[in-house]
Amino acid sequence: MCAPDSQLPAIAADVLERLRRQAPRVHCITNAVAQVFTANALLAAGAVPSMTIAPDEVGVFVERANALLINLGTFDPERRAASETAVAVARGVNLPWVLDPVFIDRSPVRAAFAKALLARNPAAIRLNRAEFVALAGAADEANMVAAFARSHGAVVGLTGATDLISDGQRLVAVGNGHAMMQKVTALGCAESALVAACLAVERDAWRACVAALLIFGVAGELAGRRARGPGSFAVEMLDALHGMDRDALLTQARVS
Amino acid sequence: MCAPDSQLPAIAADVLERLRRQAPRVHCITNAVAQVFTANALLAAGAVPSMTIAPDEVGVFVERANALLINLGTFDPERRAASETAVAVARGVNLPWVLDPVFIDRSPVRAAFAKALLARNPAAIRLNRAEFVALAGAADEANMVAAFARSHGAVVGLTGATDLISDGQRLVAVGNGHAMMQKVTALGCAESALVAACLAVERDAWRACVAALLIFGVAGELAGRRARGPGSFAVEMLDALHGMDRDALLTQARVS
Amino acid sequence: MCAPDSQLPAIAADVLERLRRQAPRVHCITNAVAQVFTANALLAAGAVPSMTIAPDEVGVFVERANALLINLGTFDPERRAASETAVAVARGVNLPWVLDPVFIDRSPVRAAFAKALLARNPAAIRLNRAEFVALAGAADEANMVAAFARSHGAVVGLTGATDLISDGQRLVAVGNGHAMMQKVTALGCAESALVAACLAVERDAWRACVAALLIFGVAGELAGRRARGPGSFAVEMLDALHGMDRDALLTQARVS
Repeated sequence: MCAPDSQLPAIAADVLERLRRQAPRVHCITNAVAQVFTANALLAAGAVPSMTIAPDEVGVFVERANALLINLGTFDPERRAASETAVAVARGVNLPWVLDPVFIDRSPVRAAFAKALLARNPAAIRLNRAEFVALAGAADEANMVAAFARSHGAVVGLTGATDLISDGQRLVAVGNGHAMMQKVTALGCAESALVAACLAVERDAWRACVAALLIFGVAGELAGRRARGPGSFAVEMLDALHGMDRDALLTQARVS
Repeated sequence: MCAPDSQLPAIAADVLERLRRQAPRVHCITNAVAQVFTANALLAAGAVPSMTIAPDEVGVFVERANALLINLGTFDPERRAASETAVAVARGVNLPWVLDPVFIDRSPVRAAFAKALLARNPAAIRLNRAEFVALAGAADEANMVAAFARSHGAVVGLTGATDLISDGQRLVAVGNGHAMMQKVTALGCAESALVAACLAVERDAWRACVAALLIFGVAGELAGRRARGPGSFAVEMLDALHGMDRDALLTQARVS
Repeated sequence: MCAPDSQLPAIAADVLERLRRQAPRVHCITNAVAQVFTANALLAAGAVPSMTIAPDEVGVFVERANALLINLGTFDPERRAASETAVAVARGVNLPWVLDPVFIDRSPVRAAFAKALLARNPAAIRLNRAEFVALAGAADEANMVAAFARSHGAVVGLTGATDLISDGQRLVAVGNGHAMMQKVTALGCAESALVAACLAVERDAWRACVAALLIFGVAGELAGRRARGPGSFAVEMLDALHGMDRDALLTQARVS
């Protein structure tokens, strides 16, 4: 059942081509700081973002979307209520959804909410190391990531210097990315939105998550070669996502 | 009464010069994703933006402004209430206001709200083709646009590969713009804000709307020549708005 | 007690080095338009931003932060409540906080709120000339700035073509900066956030404020040399903050 690692860059290229052909709608309930870069990253990659959290609209937007992102940054009561509605609607229509538990290591109430959402079957969870430790109560080692994914029935995409992606059975490490990604706000949030976009066009959630993290990581490396600092890095990142192609993925992806 | 088309680029240049000389204040009730780019586009063009939606402040900001924008994106209850107040104040002091019915094709409650606002005399409505169809219940052909403008007493600026601008009597098509404008969030929203800014310095709402769409479209073409993707396009767009001048408008405008 | 002016660029360089070494957490309650650029400017300079205004989270974020910014732009009821909580928590744990009374010259209720906050011991106030006049009821001359700082026990950082920084005893003028800074939204807001970041690593609030305004002003000049308009200026500004070093500060700072 496990795809050979050497096939993953080609699978990511297939997913990207479907993303551009199908232009899936991704509804994002995401934090105020991340909205613009997330919308632009989705557009650059080929998806169509929407972002409303209005109580009487969020349901219809989710129903007509192809995937959903729930990001817990700047988690005010309106976003919390919108997330409850959105996840309920998504489950009702069998829409894949992604959880990004931003900064749960900094806020106990947010961590509790993230744990409650875990029980509602996210297809994937994208988070960083501190957030994984807060969510899983365990170290961020590969076997812990796989065990957590297995016990929750969700793909985990743990990003950092090396990304780990597991669904409990399969586990892969992605070595792409660039240090400057830590110096631009909302990069991780946008990466989670890209996971949602890939889920809209690839039913195997592990492959979708690997594809998203490969596309994002390779784009980060290309951006890092052109940027002179974090301002130009953010610009180059969007250009690189837009210009990403099969050749760049096949030649630059580092999976192991 | 109809300006010869060949004069429109010069009229747009006049409007732009007044915009820079008068630096009008434009109060924008706009969606969370569009606020930053809209503010920067207004500043780049020469206007002064404000954006508050606080219930006890929005009235005084509108009173002291020279034009108002109501954009229905991310339309939460606070923005809805602020819009009601803002439009009432604007009408009381005879301030021109612009309606941008973002995504009403995606949300029935938003479409109903847009229709209610139509009765409150917007000077102009800026929207895309899907939104026009949802609002007008008609195809987006030139004669339908003119009929809709006539029956509602408002200028319609319908943007797309070709823009159509009509006040019911006059109708012009603007051929400027660039495909990359679809790949950056908030471009259309910022264009609506520029319509409001032009209304602040030009009483003929049709000329103001034509001027705004010409300035924006020509800036888009200049940006498209320099950009390598949607990230750099957004940057170049602001630079092009700031650097726009009579010569660029006279030589590059395509009106028919 | 007064630092010789000739030492101030070196002091700013020391503060910047500590900022990068300590990576202080700066909690920002700031307006919707300023959040992204503020977060990116703090990251570029070496600090770690957070931005939540959720009532049940803001306290814990402030407690775990090293400095706090209260910015009054887009001042809705949620931000107002969050500010009350945040300032109370900050005072309880002796955290330095900065007040940025954005646009109080445009809104009487906002001006009244700013005056109430003044009594709660901000370490520094960063504002422009129109805001100073509205807050102090006095002209923006150097002796008025010093008198206002003295009577309120807070450092005042008044920015414009020339910046004035006073704690009531000490007064310095900073001549760095660039005209394009007026053409990009949120630049002043981000500068206030940098004052907060510097307060987190420098107990002398006057030195912290001078350091922040020097770093920001020199970055603005470097950005202005590379930019072709306000779009590229914003990008270059972040790159310049990230690349700022002792040499640039020592050779380019203009203090008097």
